[in-house]
Amino acid sequence: MKARSFVYGAWHEGTAEGVSVANAITGEPICSVSSDGIDFAEVVRFGRDVGGPALRAMTIHERAEMLKALGLKLLDNKKRFFDISQWTGATKVDSWVDIEGGLGTMLSYSSIARRELGNEPFIVEDKAQPLSADGSFVGRHILTPKPGVSVHINAFNFPCWGMLEKIAPSLIAGVPVIVKPATQSAYLTQAMVEDMVESGLLPDGSLQLICGSVGDLLDQLSEQDSVTFTGSASIGQMLKVHPNIVAHSIPFNMEADSLNCSILGETVSEDDPEFDLFIKEVTREMMVKAGQKCTAIRRALVPRAMTNAVSDALKARLSRVAMGDPSIEGVKMGPLIGKSQRDDVASQVSKLCEQSDVLLGGNDAVLELVGDHCSQDAFYPPTVLLSKAPTEEGYVHSVEAFGPVCTLLPYDDVSQAVAIAALGKGSLVGSVVTNDASEASELVLKAAAYHGRMLILNRDNAKSSTGHGSPLAPLVHGGPGRAGGGEELGGVRAIKHYMQRTALQGSPSMLTAITREYTAGAEKIRTPVHPFRKYFDELQIGESLTTHRRTVTEADIVNFGCLSGDHFYAHFDEVAAKDSLFGQRVAHGYFVLSAAAGLFVDPAPGPVLANYGLENLRFIAPVAIGDTIQADITVKQKIKKTRRPDEERATGVVVWDVLVRNQNDETVAVYDIMTLVERQED
Amino acid sequence: MKARSFVYGAWHEGTAEGVSVANAITGEPICSVSSDGIDFAEVVRFGRDVGGPALRAMTIHERAEMLKALGLKLLDNKKRFFDISQWTGATKVDSWVDIEGGLGTMLSYSSIARRELGNEPFIVEDKAQPLSADGSFVGRHILTPKPGVSVHINAFNFPCWGMLEKIAPSLIAGVPVIVKPATQSAYLTQAMVEDMVESGLLPDGSLQLICGSVGDLLDQLSEQDSVTFTGSASIGQMLKVHPNIVAHSIPFNMEADSLNCSILGETVSEDDPEFDLFIKEVTREMMVKAGQKCTAIRRALVPRAMTNAVSDALKARLSRVAMGDPSIEGVKMGPLIGKSQRDDVASQVSKLCEQSDVLLGGNDAVLELVGDHCSQDAFYPPTVLLSKAPTEEGYVHSVEAFGPVCTLLPYDDVSQAVAIAALGKGSLVGSVVTNDASEASELVLKAAAYHGRMLILNRDNAKSSTGHGSPLAPLVHGGPGRAGGGEELGGVRAIKHYMQRTALQGSPSMLTAITREYTAGAEKIRTPVHPFRKYFDELQIGESLTTHRRTVTEADIVNFGCLSGDHFYAHFDEVAAKDSLFGQRVAHGYFVLSAAAGLFVDPAPGPVLANYGLENLRFIAPVAIGDTIQADITVKQKIKKTRRPDEERATGVVVWDVLVRNQNDETVAVYDIMTLVERQED
Repeated sequence: MKARSFVYGAWHEGTAEGVSVANAITGEPICSVSSDGIDFAEVVRFGRDVGGPALRAMTIHERAEMLKALGLKLLDNKKRFFDISQWTGATKVDSWVDIEGGLGTMLSYSSIARRELGNEPFIVEDKAQPLSADGSFVGRHILTPKPGVSVHINAFNFPCWGMLEKIAPSLIAGVPVIVKPATQSAYLTQAMVEDMVESGLLPDGSLQLICGSVGDLLDQLSEQDSVTFTGSASIGQMLKVHPNIVAHSIPFNMEADSLNCSILGETVSEDDPEFDLFIKEVTREMMVKAGQKCTAIRRALVPRAMTNAVSDALKARLSRVAMGDPSIEGVKMGPLIGKSQRDDVASQVSKLCEQSDVLLGGNDAVLELVGDHCSQDAFYPPTVLLSKAPTEEGYVHSVEAFGPVCTLLPYDDVSQAVAIAALGKGSLVGSVVTNDASEASELVLKAAAYHGRMLILNRDNAKSSTGHGSPLAPLVHGGPGRAGGGEELGGVRAIKHYMQRTALQGSPSMLTAITREYTAGAEKIRTPVHPFRKYFDELQIGESLTTHRRTVTEADIVNFGCLSGDHFYAHFDEVAAKDSLFGQRVAHGYFVLSAAAGLFVDPAPGPVLANYGLENLRFIAPVAIGDTIQADITVKQKIKKTRRPDEERATGVVVWDVLVRNQNDETVAVYDIMTLVERQED
Repeated sequence: MKARSFVYGAWHEGTAEGVSVANAITGEPICSVSSDGIDFAEVVRFGRDVGGPALRAMTIHERAEMLKALGLKLLDNKKRFFDISQWTGATKVDSWVDIEGGLGTMLSYSSIARRELGNEPFIVEDKAQPLSADGSFVGRHILTPKPGVSVHINAFNFPCWGMLEKIAPSLIAGVPVIVKPATQSAYLTQAMVEDMVESGLLPDGSLQLICGSVGDLLDQLSEQDSVTFTGSASIGQMLKVHPNIVAHSIPFNMEADSLNCSILGETVSEDDPEFDLFIKEVTREMMVKAGQKCTAIRRALVPRAMTNAVSDALKARLSRVAMGDPSIEGVKMGPLIGKSQRDDVASQVSKLCEQSDVLLGGNDAVLELVGDHCSQDAFYPPTVLLSKAPTEEGYVHSVEAFGPVCTLLPYDDVSQAVAIAALGKGSLVGSVVTNDASEASELVLKAAAYHGRMLILNRDNAKSSTGHGSPLAPLVHGGPGRAGGGEELGGVRAIKHYMQRTALQGSPSMLTAITREYTAGAEKIRTPVHPFRKYFDELQIGESLTTHRRTVTEADIVNFGCLSGDHFYAHFDEVAAKDSLFGQRVAHGYFVLSAAAGLFVDPAPGPVLANYGLENLRFIAPVAIGDTIQADITVKQKIKKTRRPDEERATGVVVWDVLVRNQNDETVAVYDIMTLVERQED
């Protein structure tokens, strides 16, 4: 069988013999992988000219809805992926992380985008910045989709998750993707892409797949394209300085394996639940994917006095782990991806052993494998080493055995633990296992600069923690130095990664027209109809109402205090109020809010269904007895919502800019209110 | 005279002869520049081990206050800098941009940091992210100062601004700087650094200056350091792939010259004010710094029919410009920085002329210089070219004459204008001159991905606009592709550039302890004293009050409606309320807010001086007649404010997390309120 690529709208079989890929458990051949015959210039052109325009014509919510439908569709087909995933040597847990974890990440991105971003093809960021004293010149950031492609070069260990966590933000950004999975497990990525293509949910050209070498793909890219890389630091660094990437300043986001550490706190005793948590976490990170994870714990830092206890506990726990064919009940750990990977791990362990003692496993261990069809080719035993020189630069801080291998490093005190962690020269993740908040604070604040993520594990989150090794959609994934210096995921950050941020400068009216958000100072639209009487579709950005006025009386303050129960001296105590910031009795801030609502609310039923939130409230000036207030309410932003089958009404969110003034035209309060407004169209 | 470096706490004169630097106007020698004899490993060590710890021991506001004091001090000395700046050929306007513009940027950064960031040594970012259904596992991003140095390699054209716009965010981030100005104008940077050192305001090791070559400085850096580069694309690309920078994934932020464009809209006629604005902007960008600006307009795109009108107007305006010795009244344009720069511009113009006609100036123009002491060495005349092939890839889109040179490119329609702009392959800035909002929107939204900044210039901001060429502290400066792919300034973004972002995961109590911000779900601190009776210093993060309860009655709704004037049907119309989202009459949201204040406000005068703002309000569930509400108010964040001499009281901002519950323990509303609270200590 030959692995297939999906390029310029069609499936392509490599014309050369290609690289042969074997079943990790049995060693039997699965397929050969070759990208020969692909015209990479045409791949890039097809993405840019066919996929890009189709995606950019959609809004962010439309792109996110598309991915939601796709994610749910693929979840329906998950059994097929789980079956194929077994060939990689994955246990059920391993497959779950890759397949359901990956689809969950895609679905999370769909939610994040719809929850946190507006429903336009672009993103408007930050508040408008005043750039001149007279208000006629303002600045605002906008992010627009880059009219290029994003190329994702992925690692073999997560053939599904690795693809999905990158294509989700890119497609939501409006940028077509070219996915290049690692050869060893490309067949699983291919299977998922087959179902994606089959679904018909993605526009032509928005997703292409290259199984095999990338040929001259990188030479075809230009300044509007981007590249992400997940894999070994050495290959990543080589690609990063590719002359064409450098010449066009092509964003190159790198996520490399790193020497991640977990630190057992000094305050933890053997009887504490945190001791067991540490042992469980270290063993779990060795077993999952047989330790083939960029985020696995390579260095376990333990207080010197605890070394033996930890060593004994790890040995006891790991010696119970059944290794073999994961389809057999009770097998908790599978093989590495293949023979060459096993050979690589063995050679790295040899290096590590120059400065460490073997406590368990290692190159000379005899393998006991569960299952009749297991080939010895790709299995490697759980291996625990003990560093002889934890505080010195050496292999333990620089050589990664990408398998079930972990080294114990004894430390003497917190600052030494931080120094040892730092010897890794930058990691994706570090964890701290302690129930002592001040110990955790010290360790984390001193070690954070060396880590892209830090997990603090204790009894409180023992059950709910997703663990040391798991990147999550809302949090950044990546790390400094050895870890590649990149940043993936992290909520909307990853979406923005594929867009260009541009600072806009202009008059408020111009920025309103371009960003489709009302900018204070822009021209307003006034119609004879109260804006609360208009449906979502009818309202225009900048549509505004100036209310009637109201004089605030002493009786108002008295009544409001009695009704609310708020008798703060600034409202009620003439003596104390004189000495206060205000110099006199003033109205309650919440009275001003309430009275403003009284000025602009239209009582009868209408399209405005509810006011569900308020943001950015600032009381700018006090309102004194006798002051007369008036409100301006203006449509600031409209976010059309997709109607769910169970929803009675089609709606959208309208954000209103509210400004309350006094009789001297001084601003008293400013804020935004969020309302749910009915749509007429569906 | 020899230029001096300031390294490891002392002034250093280069031991070699060095590069001779001449007065741009007269050609007379000023100084020689050499960094020979500097131990660069020691420079980096001194920054890391002496400067870093001192800065990291300060909070962000303390660092910002330090820069404010420094900026004001340097403004006092500005005459000295203006005098020296003349030697670079700068006019008064040019010097103002460099010196006062630079110090203004430093002062802006001080304000931005104090206004937008908390007062801790680190930055906590975003809201906490729930990571488990039971609330025991949450995530949050923190940014901590990198324990390294930042190396700033700057361009010759802005010896002050170029230094200040980079050191301000780095020092506020807590990262010591090593400044390497361009050799040609290093003497002015040196003069300003002399006054900085003299001021005694910066901790030892936080600022070092290298005049001359950087030697093996880049080889000394590691994964906690960062490099910024401003200058030509070719040198930037060379440094970016320096093996040590690549090996340690050292962040390298590049801002390169680019082929910026300004587009005159199709809708603009010769009689419109926008026509004059375009002519003024193009000529201004040629004259300021004699066009030696990364952001200058190199390509002026004009509707084909307007080519002659624009050409005539530019010629008329530019032929009136007096060039010569800027110390002489009426001289509006000075020389380039030196002879080699002039030769470089001339050779680039030769290339441009292969595909363009000369409309004004050029290599053969005869120079008429005002002033007796002008050497012909460094002067170059304002030069306007007309492209013969604007839509083709060619020199006009790739060759930058870094002087007073601009090429006109006629275009046929909007999409062609966008395509021509894109041929620059990434620019720092593009401007659009039009009064038509839909034309501006189309141009900007299509061209934004190619630009780091876009200015829309029209009659409304003609007077207030800071112009095409001026980066501003709150907005990003940088651009894709040819412009280097970097990002400077942009408010807090530039500060974060020098910090490491780390995703924290843990229990709410752990995250509260580490971030010093209360995370919902964390343990609360309860004392017998009402928290509003405590001074800022006494309040602890997590200190909390659970109020008494209040049953909401029909009378409350009636009274609140009458008092506020808000008679919305959901509160008053039993018939319509039945069909509403709520299914029954419910209390006003603002009543719930007001009643909650009534529950937690302590009436007598005390340390809480005012409630000045509110954020993140969400009404989660309606409050019906008969419901009983209760509030929890918890200290979420404390921001100590520096007391100004004119302030009567020392204060701090306390942000309170407020949660209103009903009798079923369901959350009714959540929000944050900001109060100003008196401090006891100074």
